[in-house]
Amino acid sequence: MKKVVDICLSPDLLHLFSLKDKIVVVIDVFRATSVMCTALNNGITEIVPISNLDMLNEFKSDEYIVAAERDGKIVDGYKYGNSPLHYHENPDIKNKKLALTTTNGTRAINLSKNDASDVIIASFLNVTAVSNYLDNNKNDVIILCSGWKGQVSLEDTLFAGFLIDKLINTGFKTQSDSSFLSRQLYIDSKSNLLKFALQSSHKKRTENLGIDEDFKFCLQLDIYNNVPILKGNSVVLKS
Amino acid sequence: MKKVVDICLSPDLLHLFSLKDKIVVVIDVFRATSVMCTALNNGITEIVPISNLDMLNEFKSDEYIVAAERDGKIVDGYKYGNSPLHYHENPDIKNKKLALTTTNGTRAINLSKNDASDVIIASFLNVTAVSNYLDNNKNDVIILCSGWKGQVSLEDTLFAGFLIDKLINTGFKTQSDSSFLSRQLYIDSKSNLLKFALQSSHKKRTENLGIDEDFKFCLQLDIYNNVPILKGNSVVLKS
Repeated sequence: MKKVVDICLSPDLLHLFSLKDKIVVVIDVFRATSVMCTALNNGITEIVPISNLDMLNEFKSDEYIVAAERDGKIVDGYKYGNSPLHYHENPDIKNKKLALTTTNGTRAINLSKNDASDVIIASFLNVTAVSNYLDNNKNDVIILCSGWKGQVSLEDTLFAGFLIDKLINTGFKTQSDSSFLSRQLYIDSKSNLLKFALQSSHKKRTENLGIDEDFKFCLQLDIYNNVPILKGNSVVLKS
Repeated sequence: MKKVVDICLSPDLLHLFSLKDKIVVVIDVFRATSVMCTALNNGITEIVPISNLDMLNEFKSDEYIVAAERDGKIVDGYKYGNSPLHYHENPDIKNKKLALTTTNGTRAINLSKNDASDVIIASFLNVTAVSNYLDNNKNDVIILCSGWKGQVSLEDTLFAGFLIDKLINTGFKTQSDSSFLSRQLYIDSKSNLLKFALQSSHKKRTENLGIDEDFKFCLQLDIYNNVPILKGNSVVLKS
């Protein structure tokens, strides 16, 4: 029997899905899941996703890098935020743990962790590794788009359509209209995927914050060949 | 200043929107809002949208046609359901009121009626009349897709994209990613809009129920030149 992939377009629709025995693929292309892939591939040993800013205080020690983003910006008083460039080729993070809170992505992870069989992290940076991992696993899949404060986001919907298209090509089936429309969006824009993704409201919302370089970084394909996975309360690279 | 149109892809996302001073356009293409347009253009004087089946009992009198649909089917014991063909050219409904409960559409109306400046009803059957009405009104617009039990539906998203495209052509602006993607979906499929809409999971879900004729009826363009609007607790034709 074919495995099923479905998509939840916003964390605020997650109550409509049963996560039991499903792998949840969390995506927050701009930028949390791209940051997670980057940090783990540049020396961070594990990432603790935190929903509430207040809880970060517990992690202020030499063992941890502590990072906080709200509304696209580093929270005042923090050195690290939600830019992959803070972590890329940065020797200061080597062998540290990362406690990270972001506007959308860390919330999506924490909402799914109790019910899913596994929670994994996807971005353009590791999409083929994610697709292969799902192909080699027996469970059905729910792709959870982190969106923006509950609203559906273009870049996550588009990336989900990309991943769904890959999975259908490896033998998955999909039935929902959300899957259909996100895949259709991908198919219609794939000749110019990156330009299309950059039309997102998130890009417009943050265009005064000087993070264009972040977006370009996040839109690189397959620079990492591994899959971050939630183990207990931490995201680690799948061994 | 340009008026703004936005889209809420599911009633389960309505908490993310402020409806104050906005016109809410409720759409449930397959089939509740198509039924409402049809009933009001075939002799029904007003429609009371009911969320709970139990409440229909209050309307069992000669004054009312009472109609109930759940999961695509007429509820047992009722003569009228959610098919536009029950109302089209049916002399029995002339000068009656209609008390109607459906799986999705009536819920969407009742969720928006307390906060919006106006609630109007749209379908392919009256799309140009709706676009003209919104063009001639000063308020911003939220298009509320009824979806299917909280899930995003292809046909409502597509129709919303169609309406957004019309409104942008009359001078509205739109900012959200949901608007962008629904309009993009419409633009990519407009050369074969009806075939595209028929790929919806709602069509598949109901294909054993013999309601293909309903779908064809619902996909006719502009057979009515008027706008149903909520006045108090009833939907009537805008005079």
